[in-house]
Order: sequence, then structure tokens, then C-alpha cells
Amino acid sequence: MRIVDLIRKKRDGHELAAAEIEFIVKGYTAGEYPDYQMSAWLMAVLLRGMSRAEIAALTGAMLNSGEVLEWGGLPGAKVDKHSTGGVGDKTSLIIAPIAAAGGVVVPMISGRGLGHTGGTLDKLESIPGFNVNLSAGEMRKVLAACGCCLIGQTGTIVPADKKMYALRDVTGTVESPALICASIMSKKLAEGIDALVLDVKTGSGAFMKSEADAVHLAELMVETGERMGKKVVALITDMDQPLGRYIGNALEVVESVEVLQGGGPADLVELCIELAGWMLYLGGRAPSLEQGKETASALIASGAALEKFREIVRLQGGNDQALSDLSLLPQARHRVDVLSPTGGIIDRMDCEKAGVASLVLGGGRETKEDNVDPAVGIVLHKKVGDQVAVNEPLCTLHYNSSARLEEARSLIQSSYGFSAIPANKLRPLMHRVIGA
Amino acid sequence: MRIVDLIRKKRDGHELAAAEIEFIVKGYTAGEYPDYQMSAWLMAVLLRGMSRAEIAALTGAMLNSGEVLEWGGLPGAKVDKHSTGGVGDKTSLIIAPIAAAGGVVVPMISGRGLGHTGGTLDKLESIPGFNVNLSAGEMRKVLAACGCCLIGQTGTIVPADKKMYALRDVTGTVESPALICASIMSKKLAEGIDALVLDVKTGSGAFMKSEADAVHLAELMVETGERMGKKVVALITDMDQPLGRYIGNALEVVESVEVLQGGGPADLVELCIELAGWMLYLGGRAPSLEQGKETASALIASGAALEKFREIVRLQGGNDQALSDLSLLPQARHRVDVLSPTGGIIDRMDCEKAGVASLVLGGGRETKEDNVDPAVGIVLHKKVGDQVAVNEPLCTLHYNSSARLEEARSLIQSSYGFSAIPANKLRPLMHRVIGA
Repeated sequence: MRIVDLIRKKRDGHELAAAEIEFIVKGYTAGEYPDYQMSAWLMAVLLRGMSRAEIAALTGAMLNSGEVLEWGGLPGAKVDKHSTGGVGDKTSLIIAPIAAAGGVVVPMISGRGLGHTGGTLDKLESIPGFNVNLSAGEMRKVLAACGCCLIGQTGTIVPADKKMYALRDVTGTVESPALICASIMSKKLAEGIDALVLDVKTGSGAFMKSEADAVHLAELMVETGERMGKKVVALITDMDQPLGRYIGNALEVVESVEVLQGGGPADLVELCIELAGWMLYLGGRAPSLEQGKETASALIASGAALEKFREIVRLQGGNDQALSDLSLLPQARHRVDVLSPTGGIIDRMDCEKAGVASLVLGGGRETKEDNVDPAVGIVLHKKVGDQVAVNEPLCTLHYNSSARLEEARSLIQSSYGFSAIPANKLRPLMHRVIGA
Repeated sequence: MRIVDLIRKKRDGHELAAAEIEFIVKGYTAGEYPDYQMSAWLMAVLLRGMSRAEIAALTGAMLNSGEVLEWGGLPGAKVDKHSTGGVGDKTSLIIAPIAAAGGVVVPMISGRGLGHTGGTLDKLESIPGFNVNLSAGEMRKVLAACGCCLIGQTGTIVPADKKMYALRDVTGTVESPALICASIMSKKLAEGIDALVLDVKTGSGAFMKSEADAVHLAELMVETGERMGKKVVALITDMDQPLGRYIGNALEVVESVEVLQGGGPADLVELCIELAGWMLYLGGRAPSLEQGKETASALIASGAALEKFREIVRLQGGNDQALSDLSLLPQARHRVDVLSPTGGIIDRMDCEKAGVASLVLGGGRETKEDNVDPAVGIVLHKKVGDQVAVNEPLCTLHYNSSARLEEARSLIQSSYGFSAIPANKLRPLMHRVIGA
């Protein structure tokens, strides 16, 4: 087998055999052929596409490029959730404790924020002392102790993805549904899970702006997971405006605690109950989705979910007092309101712009090397459908440096769209369910 | 300007501006970005294609990556011919002397054989002493002295093509009409010519097997040349069987001399008169194509063309006695006839197989590093349309080593197709003319 022949085969639109795909992934990970051949192949994949069988083979080859976690001896179904990324999406911090409190084992490996989207690891690290860098052994201990563990990618899991993603990033080969699917699914399946709930975002704040693209990716991921013998469901959910009212790392911890205390904004609560309900159902802790959702609500109401979150924080080195006394979380030195330039009904938001506004304040990363400021962010007072008077506050910016404050203010202000009359219909939060 | 954005732009099917293409070519030649970005861009170009304006910009950028020859002070139009490559195609050795004898200046830079096709340089080097490696200064002296010069690529001309071609070869990005066009045209235009005659081959021995592909490439090259202000014509000619009767380096010199002496096979003579006629016409030495062809025939009949060939050989260090006493050319130690397995009419040949048979005897290269044996090759006794009796010789193999003799024999024998009844119509040699 020669790599150049496999590049030509994909270039000409032919289907690659599983052994050929394995040859490509294994050889690249081992450094047996140069980056310039891999990038040509990746571009051919992006433009020619891949069959479902090819995507499964690619996922499998990437999965097997490194360590696949095993939880022999740890009772209970292992279930995780993955989101394709959005603005204000702090659901992981809420539903992982709920599911674990309900008896599901959650070995969750998350990522950091990049571009306009936030990342679970950055949010967790705003809790003083919280350590996301656990070894597989430490992860097992935490999982055995409390049924949940929230960590970052390790070097030993799916090394093929690390190398391929770095190359895709600089060769214009990121935006391929097949490659995105294989990248996500190989990392999730390496967690040694039995079931997976996917939250595929669509709208102005999502990577998949169009519903059709989101559905296509969701279908690929569900089928790939099923081909690997896992229970997988994908929820297509709305990201046309930020989720909840808080954007920013410590701010999102605050809002997560609010939900776990039984409060919080309706959209965030709805999505968390939906996702946690699916995790409990697929993990065999509820006989139906409906009962899973009821259990999730009950675990919030009883305080069990919040107690589970405290336990996770303690076991991973964090100060769980910060979940009771929120003033122990990082707080920005300055606050300023952004006022509405007009009166009327808010009929749309450019959600990506809202995410970039938080990034510009220091809450996100433009490049992988940037540091994030855990304290900064945005508290939204108005969202789509709300009435606003001229000069009424749309939101409050929390900031430490005024260097890019005006840029952030302009971004968030221009992210709002106004109308004189109420919109006929708000976009629903839950668009549809694929699989399971 | 960032290379990754230009990769994405081409990937998404947008047209690149001339300045963007120049940025890509200049930056790559200067080593300002890595091979893996160029190969991704090349694959995007191959799969998305290029507009005529983009191809012209690419050709111009490649052309200007190195030295562009100038012939100020050398009177007369500078005209060259380029063939896309075939089997038994020795026309350059015949028509360059004819055109020069007719008063056209021919600064011809040729290539070596690769795969099943032969190369002009390899054929010339079978003449004892002939030196194809002249500097630009030496080239000018030879041109000034005799109006023609037959040399190989220098390091200073179109360095972008050298670097890009090496990358294309190992990344499955050779077979792009846009990239092929820019590669050929940049090298030809760097010769500082006023007019160019293109011989675009089609059929089983050509790179473009289908007529439609050949016509498409021809149209691209003609338009590109015209956009650069040159007179360009492309002849679509047949390569469904070898041209002439001799395949192999020294053997093709022998057949070239036969044509320059007024003999030689009809197909080869017809094509040479056509190509030389166009060179004389486009070079302003004949008022019409028809008169150009008459002049070409007259230059053969008078012996002026053969005398011009001797002069070129002498000026480039070769022994011109070898053109009179052909036994001074390299000769293979062994000859063996390949007999017809059946009687009937030869109704087709797999021309690429015939080229590979000569390669296998040592006459060609499988990789760029291989050495060629100038003496070996094949003399065809039967071609398409000929009657043959069982056990009558189809051809004679000239060989020095019997290591791969059986492979060559099997290839050439199986390249012949037989029929009981004559074919309705033979393919014409001249398919059509594009441009001029």
C-alpha cells in the first residue's frame, strides 16, 4: 500500500477500505509519511466526502491510535454528553452531577474554549483549586468515589486526533462533517462509555449555522456510534442566542449553581433536564426518557445534584465552599451596563458576536496559546422576545481591563436586533431528536 | 494575506485574484510556508478547478519565479514546439532543424522520458558527445550561430515549477488540467518565444486518453498563451499507436535522420510537415500554413534541414559523423523477433503497453533516478491496418540484457489486437486544430 495511491483513490471519489484508512491513520500517527501527503488526503476527504462505512473506519482507526479507557470493576453504565459548542453553554457542569447523583457513571473528558465558544475546562478552573489534569489512575479513583469525573484531554488518548487536528487547523481542512464526526466520536468512545448524548447546536452562535448541516453531522455521529455498538442520541438544539443569561467562566459557574439550587433561567433548565433525562434513560437508570427527566428534576429539588457537584469539586482538589459563597469565585473589578439604543422588542441576536464580545473582554481565546481571565464576562438582562425601553440596560459587562472594552461594548450592542412588533414565533430550544 | 485563507477560498470554489495567486507561488518558492499548506491548496485546485484568468495568473507567477530568457539582438521570430508526450515521438529532432533551416529561431528546452513516454533529451544524448546541459550564455552562442538550440531545463528557469512538480508527484495532484497547463506554459514562455506550436496527443499512448480531455487542455494552453500575448496553436494528434516505426533513443535518431533524408514512415513525415509548417507560418517565414508546409518539404528535399541538424549536433559537442554513419550510434548487442500468435488484420494497439515494453528493455525510466540504455528499443514491422500471417514478425526487440526480455516480449505482443476483417476506418493522424 502506498499513501500516494490512497490519496488518488479518495481524490477520484472512490470508497476506501477499512484497512486502507487504518494504514493512513496509523502511518501518519507514527510519522511514517510527511504532513504534505496527509494534508492532500484531508483536502480530498473534505471535498469528496466519506461514506458512513469510511467514517466508522476512520473513527475506529483514530480511537485505536492510543489508549482506550476501561472501567472493569466499576459498576453501572458509563454515559457521557458532548456539545458541539456554543455561547453560555454551561450544561456539562449541571448535568454531569445530576446523572452521577442518579447512578450513572460519567467519565467526562472536555475541551477548552476557542474562538467565540466557551469550554468546560476553563469554567471548571475558575473554581479555586479545581484540577482538570488527572491521570487515568487518578480519574479512576475519582470515578470510583463519586461516579463522575471532569477532566481534560490526556496525551495518551487518541494521539492521531491531536496530530490531525493541528494539521487541519492550518490547511483549511477543519470544516468536513466526516472529519469532525471522526474527531469527536473517537475521543468520546476512547472514554470507554456505553452510551452518549450529543448536543448538536444550530443557529448564529453554533459552528453549524444551518439546521441542515447540524442534522447531517448529528446523523453521521449517531450512525458512527451505533456502528461501534454504543447507544447514541443526538439532540439538535438552538444556539441562535446565548444559553441562559451568563457568559464567562466564573459567571457560568454561578449560573450553574443557581440551576442546581432549583433556580436559573428557563431555557438553561429545560435543556439540562432534557440532556440529563437522556443520560439517565440511556444509562438504564430510568425506564423512559420522561421518567429520566422526572428523576433529573427530583435530583435537583432534593439537593442531591448540588451535593454531587460539591463532592466532584472536592475530589478534584477544588474549594467547594466557593459553591456556597459565590464571592469566593473570581470577580471582575469593574462593571458597566450596555444600554439599549432604541426601544422595542428584541427580535434576534447575533449569538457569535455575543461570544466574541466575551472573548474580547478576556474570557476566551483567539489562539490556543492565549490565557483566559476567569472573572470577566457578560450578564444578559434582555434576550430575544423581551421588551426594552430606550437607554434601558441590555446587559452588564464584567471586566478587568478597559483595553478592548469599547470593542466588546460595540459587539454586544450590535448583536441585538430590534423590532417594533413582537415576532410571530420564537425559535424553540429543542429542534429535534436523532437516534435512540 | 494568509495562506490558510487562500486555501479555504479555493476549497470553497471561489476565484482567486492574480495578487493572491502570486502570493501563493512566490511564498512557496521562497520557502515562506510549508509543503503541507501547498499540497492542500493543490488538491483544492485539482478538485475545484481554475478559471482561465486564474490559470493565466498562475502561469505568469510561475514564469516570473525565475529567469525569463531574452533574445534582444538576435533577429527573427523565436518559435518553439511542445508535445504532451507519447511513444515513438521523435518530431522535435526533425522539425527544430527544419524550422531553423527556414529562418525561424528555435530556443527549444525539452524534458526527459518518464514512464511509458520517451524524452527528447534522452534521444539527443544517444548521439556521441551531444551536450544538452548548456548555460544561458552557451545557449545564446549556439542560437546565434545556427538558429536552433536543443537543451534541458536549467536551474534558473521557473524554479516554482520544479518545487511544485516534485510536490504534486507525491500528493496525487498531477492530473489537473489547470496545473498541467501552467506548468507547461510557464516553462515554454520562459524561453522568451514569440509563438508556440503545441502537439497535444490523444489515445492509448497519451496522458490524455480521451479526446475531450486533450481538447480541454489544448484550449486552456492556447488561451493562456494568447493572454500572455503570444501566438499559439494546438494540434490534437493521434497517439493510439506509436508514431513511426522506431521506439528507443538511438533508434529514434536513426528514424529522424531517415525523415531528414527524405524517407521515413508516412505518419511521422505527415506530422513533422504539419508541425514545421505551423512553426514557419507563425514565425512569419511563410504567408500561410500551406506555404509553410511546402517550405518544410522543400527544406527536407534540398538537404538543408539535415545539414542544419548536423550543425546543431556539432555546436553542442556531438559527433555529426554519427548522422552519416549510423553504426556510430549506440547499438544493442542482441535482437529478437516477436512473432504474431495469429493471422489477420491488426485492428488496434495498446500504445502505452508498447512504450512500457521499451522501458522494460532499459530504454525508459520508472523513476527519475533510473538511467536509460540508449541502444535498446523496438522496431515495429506491423502497425494498425496491416495484414499479418501467423508466426510473421510483428516487431524486433533490440536489447542488451535478457533480465526483463520476456516481460517486454509479453507486453509488446499483447499490445496488438487482431481482427479477421479490416477495420471500417483508421483513426486519422490529425484530429483537429485549436487556435491561431
